[in-house]
Amino acid sequence: MRIALDAMGSESAPSPEVEGALVALEREPDLEVVFIGTKKGLKPFTKIIEANPRLDTVVVEQVISMSDAPSEVVKTKGDSSIAVGIKMLKERKVDGFVSAGNTGAVVAFSLFSLGRIQGVHRPALATPFPTPSGQTVVLDVGANVDSKPEHLRDYALMGALMVGKIDGIKKPRVGLLNVGEEEKKGNQMVQEAYKLLTDSSLNFVGNVEGSRVFTGKADVVVTDGFTGNVMLKAMEGMGAAVLSVMKNTGKKYRLRGWLSKKVFKDFIIGLNYEKAGGAILLGVRGPVIISHGHSSARAIKNAVRLACFVAREGLVDAIAEEFK
Amino acid sequence: MRIALDAMGSESAPSPEVEGALVALEREPDLEVVFIGTKKGLKPFTKIIEANPRLDTVVVEQVISMSDAPSEVVKTKGDSSIAVGIKMLKERKVDGFVSAGNTGAVVAFSLFSLGRIQGVHRPALATPFPTPSGQTVVLDVGANVDSKPEHLRDYALMGALMVGKIDGIKKPRVGLLNVGEEEKKGNQMVQEAYKLLTDSSLNFVGNVEGSRVFTGKADVVVTDGFTGNVMLKAMEGMGAAVLSVMKNTGKKYRLRGWLSKKVFKDFIIGLNYEKAGGAILLGVRGPVIISHGHSSARAIKNAVRLACFVAREGLVDAIAEEFK
Repeated sequence: MRIALDAMGSESAPSPEVEGALVALEREPDLEVVFIGTKKGLKPFTKIIEANPRLDTVVVEQVISMSDAPSEVVKTKGDSSIAVGIKMLKERKVDGFVSAGNTGAVVAFSLFSLGRIQGVHRPALATPFPTPSGQTVVLDVGANVDSKPEHLRDYALMGALMVGKIDGIKKPRVGLLNVGEEEKKGNQMVQEAYKLLTDSSLNFVGNVEGSRVFTGKADVVVTDGFTGNVMLKAMEGMGAAVLSVMKNTGKKYRLRGWLSKKVFKDFIIGLNYEKAGGAILLGVRGPVIISHGHSSARAIKNAVRLACFVAREGLVDAIAEEFK
Repeated sequence: MRIALDAMGSESAPSPEVEGALVALEREPDLEVVFIGTKKGLKPFTKIIEANPRLDTVVVEQVISMSDAPSEVVKTKGDSSIAVGIKMLKERKVDGFVSAGNTGAVVAFSLFSLGRIQGVHRPALATPFPTPSGQTVVLDVGANVDSKPEHLRDYALMGALMVGKIDGIKKPRVGLLNVGEEEKKGNQMVQEAYKLLTDSSLNFVGNVEGSRVFTGKADVVVTDGFTGNVMLKAMEGMGAAVLSVMKNTGKKYRLRGWLSKKVFKDFIIGLNYEKAGGAILLGVRGPVIISHGHSSARAIKNAVRLACFVAREGLVDAIAEEFK
């Protein structure tokens, strides 16, 4: 299993990328990682990488920043870590690609270079949200900012396949994110998506309100990428605020050590994006994982392992089969 | 200050309504509350209400349920607690109206009976979100499911006036909820709203990502009612999940009592919708507060006090003046 890893992706790149990859190697015996980065960026880690036969590097000249417009980079940054990593995946030189860089740029190069799976209208970013009983996969969390009803049906089909592979659920319950539970709720786009989902072969359980995403009412929740992205980030922001309040309160009552050891550990594992590692870009012709810009080594480790899992389970082929 | 209170609104109505109103009376010396409900609904509380000269009742025949379609109720349920309460506000028999019932129905009757303030395209529901340094007011959280760029500009103007009255901020920082911070992010509607806000007289601070709503980057954050509603409810759902995890963890380590007394108290106050009491329906010709369906007596108490505050501060007149 050979994974290309964007060494210029995260905010602290390439340190979390290298550290995360090293831990991933320990956990995945058949894993090899190819770092893609600039000469300057990779330099501090050259010795570590050269010393390990399961690590390799590909040097590029260009860097894509978080503020680069996706529509521009496909024309101007063909020798960036994202462009080259996706190209290697297209040429089957690697089995998957992981980046904690510019999400829009990864989506743009994936579409431009890898291409969509035939029959899929739009790719979607899928990420798990914790629930008391396990997790709910939400998509799209930001691959597209405008969505049509038929896109949401595609997301539902892809999400159901993903949950089937990950959790082994045979007929995953699919829900539609909406402002109320009743059939007639929501804007026109959502009401039309409701009809398409009702008429599909999926196990559609109806509308799911924002408050129910965390209760495990559905295994898969579909929404447009604008709403999904805002919700995902709001969760992260609230999680950070909650942790900050808890830390301060714990400190006030001199319980900092206790909090950091016990409650925190149980708590963070459920809420933090580190656990999932990244979101899967479903609907393109290869395993692409997009991690958070703030990614730690632990998040990268899990993202690389997620790429291995997606490649090993043949999720891309399963989607292609479904949409044929 | 005379406030009409929907006695058929919340899930446990009218018990939280009566209990909440009684506490509100203690806190607001010039307050009088008129309960609007069915004879049957009000019956268990008749003695309590009759014994207090600052409480009154108006009996109606019809009840609006959470599943009633707003477009239907304006035609068929003119003798419901929501219809009659809004009508009393229109006729200036009361200074404000509070309901924990069907949000869509309250919005529909407010538009149908009270009417929009001249110049306001659409009303919006505004609610505060906690931040480490205070609060951020978010609107629209669900009055409209489809929004246009000019609606978002209206929301921004109304939200800024509201924050000015509540927090005394002279030039409130206004942000636009979006999937990224850069100007060109988001769908077409949001990009157009960005331009309108830039060209307005407001103190526009640009795009705000979901994760930044909780950091206090802006005093007012505007969004369409679909996204705002999903985000608000997701926050509530996550808050509930967090509390549940903390309770279980606390129990596991035999710290339940401690948690319930100290951390919880500090914690819940910041996150719980009870503190705000309800959302203000901005843009209609009278103070209307919509509370959560799960409202407790504490939430109702705060909602009634919020109605007093909005009426006393002349927020409706201030908006009318601004839009003239």
